[in-house]
Amino acid sequence: MPEHSVASRLRLSGLCFLLQILNILLFAVFVRYSPESSSSLCSPQLNCSQRNQDSGFQHPRFRDVHLQVLLGFGLLVAFLGRYGPGSVVISILIVSFAIQWAILIQGFLYFFQNSKIYMGARSMVSADFCTAAVLISTGALLGRINPVQMLLLALLEVTLCSLNEYIVLSLMGVTDSGRSLTVHTFGAYFGLMVSRILHQPHTDKRKREDQQDTGHQPDVFTVVGTIYLWIFWPSFTSATTVHDNAEPWGVLNTYISLVASTMATFILSPVLYEESTPRMVQIQDATLAGTAMMGMAGEMLVTPFGALIAGFLAGLISLLGFRFFTPVLHSRLKIQDTCGVHNIHGLPGVLGALLGTLLTLLATADTYGDRLELVFPLVAQGSRTATDQAFLQLCALPLTLLLATLGGCLTGYVLKIKALRTPADKGNLENTVLLEELQCMAL
Amino acid sequence: MPEHSVASRLRLSGLCFLLQILNILLFAVFVRYSPESSSSLCSPQLNCSQRNQDSGFQHPRFRDVHLQVLLGFGLLVAFLGRYGPGSVVISILIVSFAIQWAILIQGFLYFFQNSKIYMGARSMVSADFCTAAVLISTGALLGRINPVQMLLLALLEVTLCSLNEYIVLSLMGVTDSGRSLTVHTFGAYFGLMVSRILHQPHTDKRKREDQQDTGHQPDVFTVVGTIYLWIFWPSFTSATTVHDNAEPWGVLNTYISLVASTMATFILSPVLYEESTPRMVQIQDATLAGTAMMGMAGEMLVTPFGALIAGFLAGLISLLGFRFFTPVLHSRLKIQDTCGVHNIHGLPGVLGALLGTLLTLLATADTYGDRLELVFPLVAQGSRTATDQAFLQLCALPLTLLLATLGGCLTGYVLKIKALRTPADKGNLENTVLLEELQCMAL
Amino acid sequence: MPEHSVASRLRLSGLCFLLQILNILLFAVFVRYSPESSSSLCSPQLNCSQRNQDSGFQHPRFRDVHLQVLLGFGLLVAFLGRYGPGSVVISILIVSFAIQWAILIQGFLYFFQNSKIYMGARSMVSADFCTAAVLISTGALLGRINPVQMLLLALLEVTLCSLNEYIVLSLMGVTDSGRSLTVHTFGAYFGLMVSRILHQPHTDKRKREDQQDTGHQPDVFTVVGTIYLWIFWPSFTSATTVHDNAEPWGVLNTYISLVASTMATFILSPVLYEESTPRMVQIQDATLAGTAMMGMAGEMLVTPFGALIAGFLAGLISLLGFRFFTPVLHSRLKIQDTCGVHNIHGLPGVLGALLGTLLTLLATADTYGDRLELVFPLVAQGSRTATDQAFLQLCALPLTLLLATLGGCLTGYVLKIKALRTPADKGNLENTVLLEELQCMAL
Repeated sequence: MPEHSVASRLRLSGLCFLLQILNILLFAVFVRYSPESSSSLCSPQLNCSQRNQDSGFQHPRFRDVHLQVLLGFGLLVAFLGRYGPGSVVISILIVSFAIQWAILIQGFLYFFQNSKIYMGARSMVSADFCTAAVLISTGALLGRINPVQMLLLALLEVTLCSLNEYIVLSLMGVTDSGRSLTVHTFGAYFGLMVSRILHQPHTDKRKREDQQDTGHQPDVFTVVGTIYLWIFWPSFTSATTVHDNAEPWGVLNTYISLVASTMATFILSPVLYEESTPRMVQIQDATLAGTAMMGMAGEMLVTPFGALIAGFLAGLISLLGFRFFTPVLHSRLKIQDTCGVHNIHGLPGVLGALLGTLLTLLATADTYGDRLELVFPLVAQGSRTATDQAFLQLCALPLTLLLATLGGCLTGYVLKIKALRTPADKGNLENTVLLEELQCMAL
Repeated sequence: MPEHSVASRLRLSGLCFLLQILNILLFAVFVRYSPESSSSLCSPQLNCSQRNQDSGFQHPRFRDVHLQVLLGFGLLVAFLGRYGPGSVVISILIVSFAIQWAILIQGFLYFFQNSKIYMGARSMVSADFCTAAVLISTGALLGRINPVQMLLLALLEVTLCSLNEYIVLSLMGVTDSGRSLTVHTFGAYFGLMVSRILHQPHTDKRKREDQQDTGHQPDVFTVVGTIYLWIFWPSFTSATTVHDNAEPWGVLNTYISLVASTMATFILSPVLYEESTPRMVQIQDATLAGTAMMGMAGEMLVTPFGALIAGFLAGLISLLGFRFFTPVLHSRLKIQDTCGVHNIHGLPGVLGALLGTLLTLLATADTYGDRLELVFPLVAQGSRTATDQAFLQLCALPLTLLLATLGGCLTGYVLKIKALRTPADKGNLENTVLLEELQCMAL
Repeated sequence: MPEHSVASRLRLSGLCFLLQILNILLFAVFVRYSPESSSSLCSPQLNCSQRNQDSGFQHPRFRDVHLQVLLGFGLLVAFLGRYGPGSVVISILIVSFAIQWAILIQGFLYFFQNSKIYMGARSMVSADFCTAAVLISTGALLGRINPVQMLLLALLEVTLCSLNEYIVLSLMGVTDSGRSLTVHTFGAYFGLMVSRILHQPHTDKRKREDQQDTGHQPDVFTVVGTIYLWIFWPSFTSATTVHDNAEPWGVLNTYISLVASTMATFILSPVLYEESTPRMVQIQDATLAGTAMMGMAGEMLVTPFGALIAGFLAGLISLLGFRFFTPVLHSRLKIQDTCGVHNIHGLPGVLGALLGTLLTLLATADTYGDRLELVFPLVAQGSRTATDQAFLQLCALPLTLLLATLGGCLTGYVLKIKALRTPADKGNLENTVLLEELQCMAL
């Protein structure tokens, strides 16, 4: 039916138009550049005292951050590789929208002063992180939702993810520089919950078989994506580390964790599967799991062998999850996880948060020295004990899981509204082809 | 005819040899490293007073610039993706030669002292920009000129482009840090003019049909190229911003403009074409158009929503140009534009220059604060009013267009010399295969 | 025989497991983070006086180094492209293991204090360099050794390469910042010697013919790899330059050398082969040769035209080597060189070392000025004459060749042990398929 096709085609276009107009209006009314962007400017109505105090300290750091914005973004786009060339187009749409929306939402939460949002390079970094959470969630849903649904998912998830981040990082004062909790764990469980709500027994079965076929040969995108992850992820992890001195350990730990999780794949993969070497996509999974594990703990580990062991475990868990946990998830809990985000982001994120809690408990002025002030400023200032900090780090985990699950539920029911669902279900040929293309090559 | 084939094969080789020997001789006679490269060295015959004055300021900045040389160059090479894998080889040849030649020509114009050119990392950045203009021009001509012609085009265009840049930026004192005018506009109209002169009604028709076929499936190069553009272009745009403090706004504006032009593609593409989502190459076009728009205005925009609106318009104009303007250009004006550089670089460049002029007119010490000195040094010093500056910015546009058109005419007639043209026309099989490969995948 | 297949599959897995456990144990016992990583920490038992002295100088530099670790590593992974998509998986395994092992071995040699290794970003840079040498050696052996043999090769080569580096750089005080000698020359001749020992007349012949077929079309990996090399190699070359001021010349010289060697390919390739333009892989070879040439001399060249000429010669030599020297190597000396590492790394590395020696001989305080202290600290301090330094630079070449050859012999005989060799020889189907995939696309 050509009329139907025209309508469905223009619906995405129309939604984009509405959202973009909304963004332009909100930006026009609320968003201004932060005087922070040019260090010498400091309008009187803004509280710049703190900034001027240590401007010599802040200045070189700032340049680094905006370099890392770009590199970090490169990483986000590297995610695209996981979902096959066809889905790249939709992913870029999601990224384009989510970044604007995240700047707005996070601006209202963090940078709202005198009824204006003052944005700078730091807003960009936060927006990038938030977009990463959305991309992780779509990884669980690829092939089963249409672009219009994806845009709405981005709209809702950016809002909820920013809220969760604000509660955990700002209000509770939890240290999570690489975002094990607020990006990896939140994104994974949010996506899985939406997947549960959207579960449809009949169509899913057929899809699953198709996926088994597509993913076998090692493809260019997976290779390029894995290389990007190896190079740029450690930078990304430490992009929000405010202080110069704390950074190297975060980067080195992530780097070592990557190496160990890759080795783990080579050890376990031949035991679990009938192949003598792992497939490229398994190495990419291990890489992601190794970095998700180091998100919170990266800054806190004082010895390199800790990162070696943690990365090694992350690599093992990711593989074991794919082999034994994903089928259970699918058959028992009726949660389909297209790209296995539970194994790559969910489990390692949770374990990373637990490891971070443990390390916080062990943190003493002796082992950390001057670093204590950088990693746990509140503990170093004496306003909190290490045990209190560890308790809060631990509490942040169930809170994040709760918010992710509730948010996923809500979003799932919104996406189930019939008007949104129709084109994909009605066998609209054009959309089906698109959706087939969308299937991630990871599984 | 094997002899003919051997002759044509060795002609390119011979020309490369001559040009390379010429370059080596000119470098040997004229080019020396600038003492600027090692900050502590400052030979007495060079005027280093200015540099020593603010050496603390220059030093960290310098390291950034030479990082950006490399990143910027990465970007140039990313252009290659647009022209299909087959053309990458020729494009690398053009880049290799154009960089050397640009260092020489720009060295004579800018860095010539005591009959020596003192080159440094800054020369590399300028040479990279100039090479970008050549690559843009070849985008209009791909598939219709042979490698020998391309080398001669690079030789002439680098010379003229450097001259135009010298007049506009140095003599007139125009602010154009992202090179909307001197790279995008110049490159596009130069290439289009050469295309007009080389117009051949019969062969062109067949070529056009071929192009329609090749460009349909989303290919790896387009995806990787687009990712490169998203990541590294904002750095590139601000590579020549001399002052640290002015940089972030340029980067952030370009980034926001990118996002908005991508959204515009998703809005307009389903309206113009029969597909529900745009093709990857259209997103790349929008990305380039969004950045070309921000070339001059990037540093000047004081509010983020300005960049949102400008980027949005750039995305719309690029798409509308492809749909409605390119056919008119081809049928009425007999200008064939293989990769549509007029829509991607030409129009957005002109609009960016006009936007820059408007913003210059509105620039006041109130809105800019200390930034005024960084963006418009002459206005801040009081030697010029903002209106004068705006008038000069406006004058630079017709001047650039005039030089590009005249230069394109001249180059076109040189390339039309029969001795150069022969191999491609005479149906030399080997060359034809090469030329087919050369066709850009953009159209 | 399925049992055989299971055994061979688990053998790689088991070896990885053993090596990884060994690494974890050694890291646990010996490796700690250097207090250098956080500049403010300096435990009393470490000699930090030197560092504190010029901490203002060291600090910005340090940030650069760890950026370059990541970029440099990107480069290593870019090597992977040379060996075809199938071999990427094995190469990542080699990289993962070699980095850990190199940190350990180099730690024992350089950073061993109070029975602990204090690692930092600098250790990572050194480990990256060492891994590059291993990847170069495997380039000579691809398609003829199985993954288990490769792991053992990495184990032995990292040890010997670190030892050679320690003798040449630390004990003899040779200047080799881009590692012409210790990475390029060592890696190439080590690999060639192993290849000689493993020579098997019958199987090799068939393999050679296959290679001729696979390499003809320009593939995505070669293009992406070449782009990476062009962008990031100059950074990599200067990653170990300790002093800020000496860096730019190294980068600029490498950059200019790249450009000239690319031009040389376009000149000589049509003369030697029947094609009018060189293939992508030849450009990549020239790029690598041009940079290998600049390894030692990059910092020492005082004029840009020197780099132009040296790069030009490197490009010519690489091509001539492929055409005339590789067949001789194969038929007379019975050394098979799968990816032609002798032409790309071996010869240019040797020539680069000779050029470096010549430049050292010519180094005077007049031409170098303050740079003398940065490039040749011992000469500037007066504890050595330039002639002595040049003599030592020259002696380092035969020493490196001797160690590489002896080490290659030893490793070759170890890899020839029957238990290791069996699966590849016995026509185990699974492994053969893997090995075919492994063949480099470079030849």
